[in-house]
Amino acid sequence: MGIVIKLTGRVFNSEELINKYADIIAEEANRGIVVVAGGGDTARRYIEIVRKLTGREAAADMLGIWASRLNAMLMMYTLLAKGVNVYLSIPETLQELGEAYSSSKVIVMGGLQPGQSTTMVSVLAAEYLGIGTVVNCSNIDALYTDDPSKNPNAVRIEKARLSEVEGILSREGVRSFAGTYELIDEWALQIMRRSGISMIILDGKDPGKLIKYLKYGTIDGTLITP
Amino acid sequence: MGIVIKLTGRVFNSEELINKYADIIAEEANRGIVVVAGGGDTARRYIEIVRKLTGREAAADMLGIWASRLNAMLMMYTLLAKGVNVYLSIPETLQELGEAYSSSKVIVMGGLQPGQSTTMVSVLAAEYLGIGTVVNCSNIDALYTDDPSKNPNAVRIEKARLSEVEGILSREGVRSFAGTYELIDEWALQIMRRSGISMIILDGKDPGKLIKYLKYGTIDGTLITP
Amino acid sequence: MGIVIKLTGRVFNSEELINKYADIIAEEANRGIVVVAGGGDTARRYIEIVRKLTGREAAADMLGIWASRLNAMLMMYTLLAKGVNVYLSIPETLQELGEAYSSSKVIVMGGLQPGQSTTMVSVLAAEYLGIGTVVNCSNIDALYTDDPSKNPNAVRIEKARLSEVEGILSREGVRSFAGTYELIDEWALQIMRRSGISMIILDGKDPGKLIKYLKYGTIDGTLITP
Amino acid sequence: MGIVIKLTGRVFNSEELINKYADIIAEEANRGIVVVAGGGDTARRYIEIVRKLTGREAAADMLGIWASRLNAMLMMYTLLAKGVNVYLSIPETLQELGEAYSSSKVIVMGGLQPGQSTTMVSVLAAEYLGIGTVVNCSNIDALYTDDPSKNPNAVRIEKARLSEVEGILSREGVRSFAGTYELIDEWALQIMRRSGISMIILDGKDPGKLIKYLKYGTIDGTLITP
Amino acid sequence: MGIVIKLTGRVFNSEELINKYADIIAEEANRGIVVVAGGGDTARRYIEIVRKLTGREAAADMLGIWASRLNAMLMMYTLLAKGVNVYLSIPETLQELGEAYSSSKVIVMGGLQPGQSTTMVSVLAAEYLGIGTVVNCSNIDALYTDDPSKNPNAVRIEKARLSEVEGILSREGVRSFAGTYELIDEWALQIMRRSGISMIILDGKDPGKLIKYLKYGTIDGTLITP
Amino acid sequence: MGIVIKLTGRVFNSEELINKYADIIAEEANRGIVVVAGGGDTARRYIEIVRKLTGREAAADMLGIWASRLNAMLMMYTLLAKGVNVYLSIPETLQELGEAYSSSKVIVMGGLQPGQSTTMVSVLAAEYLGIGTVVNCSNIDALYTDDPSKNPNAVRIEKARLSEVEGILSREGVRSFAGTYELIDEWALQIMRRSGISMIILDGKDPGKLIKYLKYGTIDGTLITP
Repeated sequence: MGIVIKLTGRVFNSEELINKYADIIAEEANRGIVVVAGGGDTARRYIEIVRKLTGREAAADMLGIWASRLNAMLMMYTLLAKGVNVYLSIPETLQELGEAYSSSKVIVMGGLQPGQSTTMVSVLAAEYLGIGTVVNCSNIDALYTDDPSKNPNAVRIEKARLSEVEGILSREGVRSFAGTYELIDEWALQIMRRSGISMIILDGKDPGKLIKYLKYGTIDGTLITP
Repeated sequence: MGIVIKLTGRVFNSEELINKYADIIAEEANRGIVVVAGGGDTARRYIEIVRKLTGREAAADMLGIWASRLNAMLMMYTLLAKGVNVYLSIPETLQELGEAYSSSKVIVMGGLQPGQSTTMVSVLAAEYLGIGTVVNCSNIDALYTDDPSKNPNAVRIEKARLSEVEGILSREGVRSFAGTYELIDEWALQIMRRSGISMIILDGKDPGKLIKYLKYGTIDGTLITP
Repeated sequence: MGIVIKLTGRVFNSEELINKYADIIAEEANRGIVVVAGGGDTARRYIEIVRKLTGREAAADMLGIWASRLNAMLMMYTLLAKGVNVYLSIPETLQELGEAYSSSKVIVMGGLQPGQSTTMVSVLAAEYLGIGTVVNCSNIDALYTDDPSKNPNAVRIEKARLSEVEGILSREGVRSFAGTYELIDEWALQIMRRSGISMIILDGKDPGKLIKYLKYGTIDGTLITP
Repeated sequence: MGIVIKLTGRVFNSEELINKYADIIAEEANRGIVVVAGGGDTARRYIEIVRKLTGREAAADMLGIWASRLNAMLMMYTLLAKGVNVYLSIPETLQELGEAYSSSKVIVMGGLQPGQSTTMVSVLAAEYLGIGTVVNCSNIDALYTDDPSKNPNAVRIEKARLSEVEGILSREGVRSFAGTYELIDEWALQIMRRSGISMIILDGKDPGKLIKYLKYGTIDGTLITP
Repeated sequence: MGIVIKLTGRVFNSEELINKYADIIAEEANRGIVVVAGGGDTARRYIEIVRKLTGREAAADMLGIWASRLNAMLMMYTLLAKGVNVYLSIPETLQELGEAYSSSKVIVMGGLQPGQSTTMVSVLAAEYLGIGTVVNCSNIDALYTDDPSKNPNAVRIEKARLSEVEGILSREGVRSFAGTYELIDEWALQIMRRSGISMIILDGKDPGKLIKYLKYGTIDGTLITP
Repeated sequence: MGIVIKLTGRVFNSEELINKYADIIAEEANRGIVVVAGGGDTARRYIEIVRKLTGREAAADMLGIWASRLNAMLMMYTLLAKGVNVYLSIPETLQELGEAYSSSKVIVMGGLQPGQSTTMVSVLAAEYLGIGTVVNCSNIDALYTDDPSKNPNAVRIEKARLSEVEGILSREGVRSFAGTYELIDEWALQIMRRSGISMIILDGKDPGKLIKYLKYGTIDGTLITP
């Protein structure tokens, strides 16, 4: 009863991906879905430019947040055009998320606060609404024991407990590989642990994997359990 | 006492331009400035993609508006970092503009409503606050009698009354040339007429022209008077 | 699935008319209705007085907008007392309209922004929510080829395409007749054209005509199609 | 169709009482319930301290109001955890109450304004939404002809008209006994009279009495009718 | 340091009166002024019509409140046009009044809540901001011992303590005379007493009396002290 | 130019401490101060009870946040009564903090989001507004190399770099000692590092230490630099 789906910002570079994800959400709307959009290329562009202009990280993060909200709106209007009962505003705080939850089956949101990934946002949203599972349609296809692009011996993990994930992320060399930050950060793990939230990591470039999970419960990626 | 400065969205493609305009606004902050940012490339990208996905113009315009607000934030944080007493939020209605006006010397905003150019927004902002002049740092350097890129005989206009501008814009062939829409639309002209607002069109790519106008009153572009 | 009904401000001069329209809306609530109230006499009174006191058109329009919201509240509370699931607040922006749409079958609103008729508002609301038809319960009973009060040869139009309406409105002598502004303005036509919205003009003094249209699809007025 | 339940602040001193009331509200949620929480001990603590620090009654009342909102949140999250479709925000004005009413079966709120008891709030909420009955789960078990702790001859009243209640409350000696203020004030009586609202006074320490009333209509306390 | 001025709704029937009061407020703006506008004729019209349509007092009061806010806006835009640093929005709660107070010298507001006179609002505003004096530019010229239109022996009171005023108001025959309600109600007296607020009653039809008070401290009306 | 002062929730258990801190803030108001209040005993009480009732950490944190806002209001009204130009509302997001910053010299706030200490809030506030120093009036008097209540050899640290602090906090046994969480958490350290923010830890029970720092720059506690 209720699920949170995080969509990596890369989804929003592709009309086709947006459209496919919108179709999936439209079909599964009745279970109650909170979609969290990443910031993607637009975020990167604005973050880079504001960082040069101001040297301020809070400003950079705020622009990244607003870029993710722009992506969220793109999804929101796409869902509206498909006839989905989507909440027609982007919640900017957890309280606003709660207000939206009272009236709509589907809510789309972006980031919330500087110093916080959109993966963290998806975990906070799940915790706030008492939802037990976050599906992270990510920019990698699963969690690995090491960075697979650098270490040919990196092993793809199918199931892991939160404590194991923490072990992997804190190892030197892994913590810093590109995308790790987006995949899952320590703070998000902490919230998942305290509230018993599971996370499923799927390849965001392949919406078929989300369909398989939502229809048949098949996880072609990584399942992280508390 | 008070001025509205419209910055074409193209300004926000260039760090250098943003920085220069921010310096000018910082220096002239004491006169009270409302800055209206155009949507530029970000707006175009999102408008194009949402149009394909939904076929809905209101959604396309809304994303264009939010893109212009992203540009407005970029300017806002740049001004903050320069120590300007800038209002730290982007007004989304004229009422919010009014509230901001009570406390800050400089306010930055983007679009307001579907079906409305940011030039129209700058005129509405001026009218609402009782400001007599809008400086339109535009994507062309002045008003011409015809599209200069097509008609070698097009004449650059230095001064025009609103009624004359309306004549030019309504001529077949002129109404449709690229950028006209951004330059000035009929509805904006109507508001300018009813409230006696002047507009100065300057080349947005050259911030030096804005400096000249603000410091010495020199207009190297077009002055449109009621 | 969804309709926008514009009620001319004159409706709000008459208890009986308000009550009849409320009955119709109550009965048809399930289809989803956005009601846009005109400002009527209250608007005119405040506009006149603020114009004399300030000479400012934006202030005059703002008071007209708030007067139309007062009329909207009158309708809202009348609907509430009839047991209708009406949204218990007056949306002041399109975004607020969207939020209301998520939770309620019936929403009542007034004007939105200076420089804009409530007819324009009804068209913007339709476009924003993806509604294809606006019923304009107007202060005249149909569109005519000329001002019927001045030209005995003015012909009542039953059906017209948007392009034809534009032709009629832009003819000298027609543009300026009283009530034309309220009937339909060029900017509203532009939004209707770009988004394929139809408008039905009915006599606002005769609620029976709205009943006929909603129940049987009979149009005793003018149908304007894209 | 719809009821307002006022819970005395004392309820919020006891986990057990909160839990029992939450169970009752959860079971009866479908009838539409507005819960108004009193401020209780937290309110008293903050009121006392701010009064010493500032000597200002408005500040004291505001802190009392916010304390009652804290109690309201406690109930709101308890209801959410029980799976109730509760509005996930605490309305701070009657207008916000109206917005909440459009989307949720159960709404929890605290105080609204300085100079006003939460009993008054419960009556205002009922009047605003057109609800005819307020159940006041109070810190005493019924209305008496005099203060029962001081006068052994005080008679417990089972039924009274508003006019009779006014008579009792205005008698010297009664007006001032502890808890009277919370029980029911003159201003609340006035609103009840003008809008024909009934109030049922039950012992807040015994949730069984609320169950009896909601299930069987049995009133083990006082019924005040207009 | 700071004053609250209540303007009876009748002021807003007259351009000349509005203009004169605006001039006075403009001149005295530096002391910090909260203006509370009454609802006047517009309120009466809407209250009457909504009462007939719905029979609901809360709805009637809400329309009266919004009518008073319309009058407040009229004053607000008039002050803006005179160059006053007026807060460009109408506070709808005491909290919003507080926010406005942080940035502006002059704030204009109307009613707040059903069941409450605008005189009560002016007293609540004073209490909330720690202002000691309310000037009530009323529809009568002073407090009398009885209704002067009915009792030729009614004596005009120049100075009274709150306790004396209460005595006068509670006497049979006085409580009910027309305008008493607007003049000052028991609940307002209660707030004045607990927070030591004084009220000066002046004839609202004669702005000269307000000038005399503000410039020279001369009170040609009634001074009520705690 | 500008400072953030975090007050441990324990301050709010003592009228005397609140009053002393209010005096200090009042005297130093001109430098621009953001005060962040901890939740203290009220937070603890509500957290404990909601945890038992719901088993939900997000709900527990939300009540803790609202309790800290109650403490913030207590300080806000105390400052108002001392004549300070304090912002008369409690910002609930960084954006609202920004809006407040435009108009007021002193702003008081509490927590922002679940999963986040009020120390983290004070660091986020500093980063957002470009303020370089946070003074943490804490529940311990300084940073130690180990828990001083358990390890008699624990050494009081006068100056430390962020990297050193991280070393101390991550050592087994230290991370878990009571109060560490409130003192400073890893996530706050991360924001301090990326934005070059310093923190001064002083004993919250002794306001004299804050005076010494603000007047003479003397730090009787720990200075943490980037």
